[in-house]
Amino acid sequence: MSKLRFEISISLDGYVAGPNQSEEHPLGEGGEQLHEWVIGLAAWREPHKYEGGEVNASTPLVEESQSGVGAVMMGRNMFGGGPGPWGDDPWQGWWGDDPPFKAPVFVLTHHEREPLTLGATTFTFVTDGIESALEQAKAAAGEGDVHLAGGADVAGQYLSAGLVDQMQLNVVPLLLGDGAQLFEGGTGAGLGLEQVLSVEAPGVTHLRYRVG
Amino acid sequence: MSKLRFEISISLDGYVAGPNQSEEHPLGEGGEQLHEWVIGLAAWREPHKYEGGEVNASTPLVEESQSGVGAVMMGRNMFGGGPGPWGDDPWQGWWGDDPPFKAPVFVLTHHEREPLTLGATTFTFVTDGIESALEQAKAAAGEGDVHLAGGADVAGQYLSAGLVDQMQLNVVPLLLGDGAQLFEGGTGAGLGLEQVLSVEAPGVTHLRYRVG
Repeated sequence: MSKLRFEISISLDGYVAGPNQSEEHPLGEGGEQLHEWVIGLAAWREPHKYEGGEVNASTPLVEESQSGVGAVMMGRNMFGGGPGPWGDDPWQGWWGDDPPFKAPVFVLTHHEREPLTLGATTFTFVTDGIESALEQAKAAAGEGDVHLAGGADVAGQYLSAGLVDQMQLNVVPLLLGDGAQLFEGGTGAGLGLEQVLSVEAPGVTHLRYRVG
Repeated sequence: MSKLRFEISISLDGYVAGPNQSEEHPLGEGGEQLHEWVIGLAAWREPHKYEGGEVNASTPLVEESQSGVGAVMMGRNMFGGGPGPWGDDPWQGWWGDDPPFKAPVFVLTHHEREPLTLGATTFTFVTDGIESALEQAKAAAGEGDVHLAGGADVAGQYLSAGLVDQMQLNVVPLLLGDGAQLFEGGTGAGLGLEQVLSVEAPGVTHLRYRVG
């Protein structure tokens, strides 16, 4: 049975992006520090077509999170896009000519758009809600899991709806103080969590929970 | 040199107490779940005069946090007290006839009160601010460290003032959704944190950071 797995990097004070997200600062001001632990890893660099990189205690978790994924879901801001509709010359997103996903990606948005294929990745834009997106993603995933990549808003909707099966927070030693909070306004309050593992690694601690 | 160590149990969504704190619910509604990981441990039960208890991966950290402490600081709500002044028949706090601290305790409050000795613990009430309280606690601690026990408000003041040397968060798999947030309103934003250790234990993960 295909699971919905959610994974995100988060500051110790609960932010998954810094303030003032923009084309210049897609992760918000200071938000890129949330991902420093991963961009130096060979396990991340290889699928993103960078050379070299380290192997450390995060490596098995990064490899694991990339394997067994049959489909990916994300919000419109994570795909890459401003607040308005797509327009006549819609932007191709943050992910370049050959995105690293290698699996169908379902983008939650309020604005219809034809599917977009870049390299080996096809982005399908879903406008009829989170249940529909999950249904389509699970159908596309076959035996694989569905990886919910974020951002905070979409992840919060899935958490609050009780649709997430597994949640992994990569907790970074950083106090951002402002930005997008994953658990703002009581997101997921009362969900049952079972701690599955905690792994200390350089510059990050990985916390994985089964969500009930 | 005496260090200021801060340690607190916190839900995954950042709450250190549940909503509606009262005499009936000193930790707020649901807040007692934040401490379930510790109250079953022999290392906690013995100084609190309960019998039995378990030994697990949390044990060395609990023992360590109790050793080398020369003085304790806490806020007035953590000592035990409502919002008003102390009154003619002031309450003796949450901690019983023989509190577990075995070290001088400095209580931050806006209301003057004579020192209170219960068993082997003397509570000194400090009304002239957090720097004064820390100075008095360090003087009392001698070679030992000062343990900042909380709650969220007092801890936030020390964090924001850059006075904390070490912070340990005991992260509990719980989404409270409401209550007292440690990092509300940008507390400690921009402080340098260095991850010192992360320890997975039953029902909790301990995250320790060097601050500043």
